[in-house]
Amino acid sequence: MAILVTGGMGYIGSHTIVELQTAGYDAVIYDNLSNSNEKVLDRIENITGKRPVFYKGDIRDRKMLDKVFEEEKIECCIHFAGLKAVGESVQKPVEYYDNNISGTLTLVDVMRKHGCKNIIFSSSATVYGDPVMIPITEECPKGECTNPYGWSKSMLEQILTDMQHADPEWNVVLLRYFNPIGAHKSGTMGENPNGIPNNLMPYITQVAVGKREELGVFGNDYDTHDGTGVRDYIHVVDLAIGHVKAVKKLEESAGLCIYNLGTGVGYSVLDVVKNFEEASGVKVPYSIKPRRAGDIATCYSDASKAKKELGWEAKYGIKEMCEDSWRWQKNNPNGYDD
Amino acid sequence: MAILVTGGMGYIGSHTIVELQTAGYDAVIYDNLSNSNEKVLDRIENITGKRPVFYKGDIRDRKMLDKVFEEEKIECCIHFAGLKAVGESVQKPVEYYDNNISGTLTLVDVMRKHGCKNIIFSSSATVYGDPVMIPITEECPKGECTNPYGWSKSMLEQILTDMQHADPEWNVVLLRYFNPIGAHKSGTMGENPNGIPNNLMPYITQVAVGKREELGVFGNDYDTHDGTGVRDYIHVVDLAIGHVKAVKKLEESAGLCIYNLGTGVGYSVLDVVKNFEEASGVKVPYSIKPRRAGDIATCYSDASKAKKELGWEAKYGIKEMCEDSWRWQKNNPNGYDD
Repeated sequence: MAILVTGGMGYIGSHTIVELQTAGYDAVIYDNLSNSNEKVLDRIENITGKRPVFYKGDIRDRKMLDKVFEEEKIECCIHFAGLKAVGESVQKPVEYYDNNISGTLTLVDVMRKHGCKNIIFSSSATVYGDPVMIPITEECPKGECTNPYGWSKSMLEQILTDMQHADPEWNVVLLRYFNPIGAHKSGTMGENPNGIPNNLMPYITQVAVGKREELGVFGNDYDTHDGTGVRDYIHVVDLAIGHVKAVKKLEESAGLCIYNLGTGVGYSVLDVVKNFEEASGVKVPYSIKPRRAGDIATCYSDASKAKKELGWEAKYGIKEMCEDSWRWQKNNPNGYDD
Repeated sequence: MAILVTGGMGYIGSHTIVELQTAGYDAVIYDNLSNSNEKVLDRIENITGKRPVFYKGDIRDRKMLDKVFEEEKIECCIHFAGLKAVGESVQKPVEYYDNNISGTLTLVDVMRKHGCKNIIFSSSATVYGDPVMIPITEECPKGECTNPYGWSKSMLEQILTDMQHADPEWNVVLLRYFNPIGAHKSGTMGENPNGIPNNLMPYITQVAVGKREELGVFGNDYDTHDGTGVRDYIHVVDLAIGHVKAVKKLEESAGLCIYNLGTGVGYSVLDVVKNFEEASGVKVPYSIKPRRAGDIATCYSDASKAKKELGWEAKYGIKEMCEDSWRWQKNNPNGYDD
């Protein structure tokens, strides 16, 4: 039996494949390579000694998905596939909703047709909107999203919840990620954004490696200890291990479960810059820019539910996150495009 | 130039076709007949003297939609097509989200590919959830829906709004229907539910015509004048005329507009029963049943925005609604299946 990992060639997906294989699971990757690189397979093989099975396909392609389920024995699916750039989602909402929502509906329909009713869904803390409580527990009500990417995650949580209620044979784990950064210790796998990075850490590492001139910090007048936005950064390897724990939860017939995956600790933009400079020994010049629409001051998790129910907690701190991000960027200045 | 009406063979769709043709518009119907009957075409032709062009197709069928846009000159689309039974949506959420959301995403993608960026969307007062104000204006925030049908409408409003913001060439009119009842004056067109009716009026008329024994009234302990739920019933012909007015609004390059289509007047379940008995001369036995999950006490519209901006207001009262519903049911005890 194998675990199907849609979007398994991406940043979080590829790290999850490594942790699944390390834990003894067989993984099958399904990815359309729209935002990832086939070289990831070599890197995974170098780390784990095992090359995962790979199908190139789109989650909206019912025939191709059918073929995978006919050829492989799939026990559950970890569903990462989807478009994920916040800014682009504002420009191309139809593409985002079509990829993310229509794609997921096609996936779950094919899954149940083949008798596979176990899914782990890649959600996001963005579903909390401007959260009514900090730290954010899973009891915090969902809020208004500020972009189609966020809405697509929030809507899919509702859709998968309704599906599980209608058919309790489904086991659905919704994982709400906080802010994944870091990279594999080997320095051979990491985040590989197309174009200008949307997120803080790849921007910092690209400045540090000389690809960009300076970091823009969006707002220094938030109600935080240094005025810059505070987020709950989590090492991507910790996040990946969280998925392995969620697979074990599925095996207990979980029903519907929701977990925050975060560290429970918040760092400001300037905290991250300072930690990165210490870890890398490289200065990161920055300038203060106006606030971005939709950004909130502070967002960090209460991660106690995942600890209690999954036996999972983040083990890497900000120092390792910065060191590992830097090792990846330094060794691969152009990501997988070297 | 013609107006494409998806779901144009259905209850609201067919009445809208009549009013569009009466107002001089050419209408093209696109319907998969999953919940409607081809005889509707004859009835429309008998009323208006003109048989609308009809394509049998599903909104998720990109090729078939392409064919329609290649063969017809479509200036705008009134989009009714979708699954609409609240109870069934709880049992079959994947089918509901797939038909309604994936279907609409396919439709708008085909529309823009053919340069048609004008859409009127069939939404519902259900998007207000348990409304924070009565009467409900369009400023009332959207709320929590209690079923996948309602969520699909609420999500599609968000999706179409994001689409219009990303591309202001789109004109999008979201029409939030209150509770359509009534039928065409001719007695030849009306609501034709499959199986046990979900809604009040077809249940009443089926009791009156002897097809069902008694009406179940769900709760008589609500905080209303007689304890039964109060709703804003609107004559389907008024609703249809609202769509004609919305087409005129689109022609002015409306951008994004949202309108309630209701009368602004609330009637309780027992008010409707009493009015129906007076209009029909037939006694409608009923019994009080427990409240249904998700039902709210009172829901009626503030309809002033549509009056001000569309020049539309409902002209038929509860008496005509009951008379016309009864004429249709009496003349067609089995709907279109005679």
